[in-house]
Amino acid sequence: MALIVQKYGGTSVGDVDRIKNVALRVKETRDAGNQVVVVVSARSGVTNQLISRAKALNPNPDEREMDMLLTVGEQETIALTAMALHAIGVPAVSRTGTQAGILTDPAHTRARITSISGGDIQKQLDAGKVVILAGFQGHSPEGQITTLGRGGSDLSAIAIAAALKADLCQICTDVDGVYTADPRLVPDASKLDELSYEEMLELASSGSKVMQNRAVEFAQKFNVVFEVRSSFNNNPGTIVKEEAASMEDVVVSGVALDKNQAKIVVSDLPDRPGTAAKLFKALADADVSVDMIVQNLGRDGKANMTFTVPRDDIYRAEKVVTASFPDEASGKLFEANDLAKVSVVGVGMRSHSGVAAKLFEALAEASVNIQLVSTSEIKISVGIDPKDAEDATRIVHAAFGLGA
Amino acid sequence: MALIVQKYGGTSVGDVDRIKNVALRVKETRDAGNQVVVVVSARSGVTNQLISRAKALNPNPDEREMDMLLTVGEQETIALTAMALHAIGVPAVSRTGTQAGILTDPAHTRARITSISGGDIQKQLDAGKVVILAGFQGHSPEGQITTLGRGGSDLSAIAIAAALKADLCQICTDVDGVYTADPRLVPDASKLDELSYEEMLELASSGSKVMQNRAVEFAQKFNVVFEVRSSFNNNPGTIVKEEAASMEDVVVSGVALDKNQAKIVVSDLPDRPGTAAKLFKALADADVSVDMIVQNLGRDGKANMTFTVPRDDIYRAEKVVTASFPDEASGKLFEANDLAKVSVVGVGMRSHSGVAAKLFEALAEASVNIQLVSTSEIKISVGIDPKDAEDATRIVHAAFGLGA
Repeated sequence: MALIVQKYGGTSVGDVDRIKNVALRVKETRDAGNQVVVVVSARSGVTNQLISRAKALNPNPDEREMDMLLTVGEQETIALTAMALHAIGVPAVSRTGTQAGILTDPAHTRARITSISGGDIQKQLDAGKVVILAGFQGHSPEGQITTLGRGGSDLSAIAIAAALKADLCQICTDVDGVYTADPRLVPDASKLDELSYEEMLELASSGSKVMQNRAVEFAQKFNVVFEVRSSFNNNPGTIVKEEAASMEDVVVSGVALDKNQAKIVVSDLPDRPGTAAKLFKALADADVSVDMIVQNLGRDGKANMTFTVPRDDIYRAEKVVTASFPDEASGKLFEANDLAKVSVVGVGMRSHSGVAAKLFEALAEASVNIQLVSTSEIKISVGIDPKDAEDATRIVHAAFGLGA
Repeated sequence: MALIVQKYGGTSVGDVDRIKNVALRVKETRDAGNQVVVVVSARSGVTNQLISRAKALNPNPDEREMDMLLTVGEQETIALTAMALHAIGVPAVSRTGTQAGILTDPAHTRARITSISGGDIQKQLDAGKVVILAGFQGHSPEGQITTLGRGGSDLSAIAIAAALKADLCQICTDVDGVYTADPRLVPDASKLDELSYEEMLELASSGSKVMQNRAVEFAQKFNVVFEVRSSFNNNPGTIVKEEAASMEDVVVSGVALDKNQAKIVVSDLPDRPGTAAKLFKALADADVSVDMIVQNLGRDGKANMTFTVPRDDIYRAEKVVTASFPDEASGKLFEANDLAKVSVVGVGMRSHSGVAAKLFEALAEASVNIQLVSTSEIKISVGIDPKDAEDATRIVHAAFGLGA
């Protein structure tokens, strides 16, 4: 008998009919001889309704009260899911994050899990029951209700799978799995059968938003094998697990596109040791997440610094830069432009060379100008003009032979 | 410095604007130098929405899951109320029933409070904060979320007031207080300044549905003085407290009307000891709540039993009676008719005679036929034809000089 954790997101439990569908899928899994823990999110739309009521009362609501408010969404879903299972003859019982002993630090709205006791979940499973666990929530040592941040239900699922030593964790969502590229953009993109944690992380941080990154990191840390699959059909999904030797045969697993980047050029900086450190420490302190960085020596002993940030962070970045270098203000100090980032990802790159050359060649042939480049062991990213972004993604996808 | 518990029902926190209104009233109470605990219900309508979703998934939902589901209503309100108080500069913190240490037995959907620790409420009050407590909910020794039954927020308020030894518990609702009769029915009904627990209980059980009876009983048991008052104006309400000597000067405090009664006649019963016991034990076991009872000896050694039940219980009562006396089935065994019950209530009856005579006389003058009578120390009830009910209420109200 295997123990399977299944996570269903807000769209999958969006209304009464979809909850019935989830119940039928859980029943199938149980009828196949498995123990099942189901982790659910709030019904889609509920969280936004609650937030809008909160904002109507207080434009800057207290984070502790926000957690108190938002966790009702998942609590509703677990009770409804249990009732739907009872209606089709499946014994089931719901548990809140607190009842499942999901202990977190006290950082409301973005708490980190510190330990999981599991409460009586294993006992309920052994008694033949399906256990439905509220995603997204935990409790602090002081007994306060905390939440794990947007998308935190993925983390809840991976974490409870780790705590219960589950055989498999299925992340059931509205896509069939992880693709070689976004299928809405690249019609012949193909579903990947398996992927390493690191590839999944690089694909996610490069714009393939299938899952919350923290959940993938947690899975990697505790070696939880998980499968990204559809809530609406029975196609096999994508298995994400520790890197296997065979994975290196595939040089490039996928192409990711992130259109919400901005390129910032800070020019006329003093060319002396410590300038870069001062700049990037100030940006980090202001919680601006910097991605690619290039430093050029300018003329007259001045340095230019080029880096990318998420587009939403431009304003904050500008404030920080202006405050950090008040004397150098010269009008051209700070310049921001929209940028798209195309990345090729694959653990096979570790043992294969020529990936960068092939990427640059494909883009050059299509006359796409590369503004910035950054590389990691398993990823090469290029920053390009957003108007070229979608074409470039298709061209790169084809160049690496990723089509179905 | 006084400690005041204020309870606001679902209508009083029905939407964002009404929650703002509650926040302002709480601020006023606090600005006057009081410590304040606020007990709130779910926004009006929310509970019914949740129930209808549950019923769509399962016509007979599990009671434990029902409690898990319904308690989200109050949890939403406490968070929103805290945010509204923060917005007007009042330090406030919300607490669930579990966090307030409201321990109950495990009887889901109708749990009884067994003890209240109060959690850290007193500490928060002493730190200058308003504490907002979720009504209606508690938790069992096994850590399961329980609810106290419909109207349970009244009980939460009285119970926390008892646990914290509050100076006053204000039940803020959509009426100005307790009236000598229903003002919609009797235009010159007047608001009572004070009332004893027993009178309040008799008025409530006789159809003046201002508050849940269990809450009043709890207040009586722990001697919690409470005030029924409006959420929407600042008029003084009705103080309910232990009987004081002065209360006896008022012979009749109010007239209550309950139109949802039924009179059941069970005829041709064997006239031997144990028949009544058998009948009423069976009804009690089936949870049929019997009110007035009259036994007549019929002809030929047969007995007739007449009693009243809430109209919704007729069907259940008939099943029980038919099952209890299978041999006597004669066609006329069971007969049910709608009945209205008019009651006059007052602790002064204990030391004054002539109330019954005055009541019967007033009804006789108006040609209202009395079908049944029952009396307690502080109440006389008559069962009459529902078509006479509203006129009778006005006539009795006038006869006892209760008009404003």
